[in-house]
Amino acid sequence: MLRVCQRATLRRRSGHRLTAYRQISQSTKPSQKRVIFSGIQPTGVPHLGNYLGALSNWVKLQKTADPDDTLLFSIVGWHALTLPQDPAVLRSARDDMLAVLLAIGLDPERSVLFHQDHNLHHVELCWILNCLTPVGKLRRMTTWKSRLATSRNATSEAEVDESLLNSGLFTYPVLQAADVLVYRATHVPVGEDQQQHIELTRDLAEIFNRTFKGQKPLFPLPIYVNAPSKRILSLRDPTSKMSKSSPDTASRILLSDTASQIKSKIRAAVTDSIPGITYDPISRPGTSNLLTILAACTGSNAQDVAGKYISKGHGQLKNDVADAVEELLKGPRSEFERIRHEKAFLDEVARKGASKAIVYSGATMEDVKRRIGLS
Amino acid sequence: MLRVCQRATLRRRSGHRLTAYRQISQSTKPSQKRVIFSGIQPTGVPHLGNYLGALSNWVKLQKTADPDDTLLFSIVGWHALTLPQDPAVLRSARDDMLAVLLAIGLDPERSVLFHQDHNLHHVELCWILNCLTPVGKLRRMTTWKSRLATSRNATSEAEVDESLLNSGLFTYPVLQAADVLVYRATHVPVGEDQQQHIELTRDLAEIFNRTFKGQKPLFPLPIYVNAPSKRILSLRDPTSKMSKSSPDTASRILLSDTASQIKSKIRAAVTDSIPGITYDPISRPGTSNLLTILAACTGSNAQDVAGKYISKGHGQLKNDVADAVEELLKGPRSEFERIRHEKAFLDEVARKGASKAIVYSGATMEDVKRRIGLS
Repeated sequence: MLRVCQRATLRRRSGHRLTAYRQISQSTKPSQKRVIFSGIQPTGVPHLGNYLGALSNWVKLQKTADPDDTLLFSIVGWHALTLPQDPAVLRSARDDMLAVLLAIGLDPERSVLFHQDHNLHHVELCWILNCLTPVGKLRRMTTWKSRLATSRNATSEAEVDESLLNSGLFTYPVLQAADVLVYRATHVPVGEDQQQHIELTRDLAEIFNRTFKGQKPLFPLPIYVNAPSKRILSLRDPTSKMSKSSPDTASRILLSDTASQIKSKIRAAVTDSIPGITYDPISRPGTSNLLTILAACTGSNAQDVAGKYISKGHGQLKNDVADAVEELLKGPRSEFERIRHEKAFLDEVARKGASKAIVYSGATMEDVKRRIGLS
Repeated sequence: MLRVCQRATLRRRSGHRLTAYRQISQSTKPSQKRVIFSGIQPTGVPHLGNYLGALSNWVKLQKTADPDDTLLFSIVGWHALTLPQDPAVLRSARDDMLAVLLAIGLDPERSVLFHQDHNLHHVELCWILNCLTPVGKLRRMTTWKSRLATSRNATSEAEVDESLLNSGLFTYPVLQAADVLVYRATHVPVGEDQQQHIELTRDLAEIFNRTFKGQKPLFPLPIYVNAPSKRILSLRDPTSKMSKSSPDTASRILLSDTASQIKSKIRAAVTDSIPGITYDPISRPGTSNLLTILAACTGSNAQDVAGKYISKGHGQLKNDVADAVEELLKGPRSEFERIRHEKAFLDEVARKGASKAIVYSGATMEDVKRRIGLS
């Protein structure tokens, strides 16, 4: 059972700000229909960490959602621009990401799959929210430092300074808020590092609702939804996350990797020389990472999986991990390879998705413009 | 003859940055067809200072432009949002400003008249330019301080601090650059206080052209066009500009003022007790302001006008100024009153204007997206 973490800010009831976390089960029936929005950057073919961390969760959400729930999954090209991109690479990465979303099982008839940059309402609302966002609040956001550090392969955030900061990267939490609010989304499944942005989104929704009152608040306050952490680490350096930007391609498994590539990368994975297999992320990060991967692929728990290998060796574990990863990825991979170059088909899916998205966001923007005096 | 000031940045030729000013006559035939863009905020019925400073210049540009020149004049509602606005006031101010543009003689068949917020390409390009704009460059822009000071009726910029700054006001020079570049405008007639923004616009155009090379540079570097300064001062405090935000309504003449309102405001204008009339802006600001107004209304020069009043008194001057202002405004005023509440007509003009604007900007954005990899 997938458990999600719901954050409720009870500002009004208590008179001061009180933040409460509450564990709820996703099987609890929501009292109102949900609007779920999430986005992913078009940064090439996703790796196993992206898949197990975010994308497979989207597929689960699609399977478990109530028929009344609206699901929107966006490839957020405008966010990609906040760091330098090669235009040709970005162009094919956008197509590849859409092909991946389809290949892993997202159904464009059930979920709205679209390119963010096909719906200008995002940037329209972004500008309006910018006018409600104190610069001081953005300055306290720290995520741009880690984004810059990652993009420059810096080992610490101290290596990057504000002289490298562009206004897009500085204000991208506002665009992210617009991404969510333009659909009046109620639930936002994103990584833990994005949690402060969801807080900003809620703040901006509240500021807007308070500043531009109507019969009822225009924006719901969206809830941050965190899937149980499946933090997949680098196969070569298991102290850091699996990353698309690491120069060592053996550190990650891509969704497009063949069975033999998977096998050789898992075989070469850094582990340790301690005999037997135990789950101990602190002192045995490489071994524990393999257990995490195996557990995620087979829908079980890393501790439980470790119990079965207590008297086995790394060779056996690696074989089983490679088999499990291949079993998980072979379906999506062959579907991905089948459609990734079907440009006309992908364009048509994107066009239809954007049309649907624009219907939702258009209704919001009509209301927004009426409230602020721009219509 | 209207003279304009052309700023040419000769970065490439000299290897380092060399800025040269050159006075050219507008009657000089341009070698290429011009695209002229300017914008005005919807901040209620304009006053005489707005009219003589910017708006009458737009009408002159329309009259003197080559038939091949494209003229775009925009009511920039998104810029208005950078300071708090009453939605109902903003809504009617948008209609009023369009009615004013028509009433003073801008012809929607010749010039593209439109609401900025009807063309989402502005915010689309703004986001893309944000991703190319160093935050440090925006920090060095000082105009937000004066805008904040004016909006709060602060007497000095020192009274406003960054805690009041929102991200819209901080980044509005980038939106302004997008306003201009989305039409590949070549000439931008704006006030002197906006000159640093045109410099930023040129910088961003150059950064884009350099970063995203093609067969030829995508953006022309627009030229700042400054009409001869007709700085109209407050009738009550001639040390400051005539301003819509002054609490003393007798300090300004609105385009909607009646003949008797004009007469009584001019009669009550602060001058001095020195006998005779001379043009001396430093020691006789109030008297000189009346001469400036009279000269502007009659198409002559303030020094020349002063010569005719050397042996006359303030009473005579004020009578003549009131008559001249009435003569100037009566046509626009009656046209304005005729159309300002013709909502369906104004909406139709705005709709047609936006459709034309979108054709121009759409072509630019197709090229932009191809260059950056978003299409």
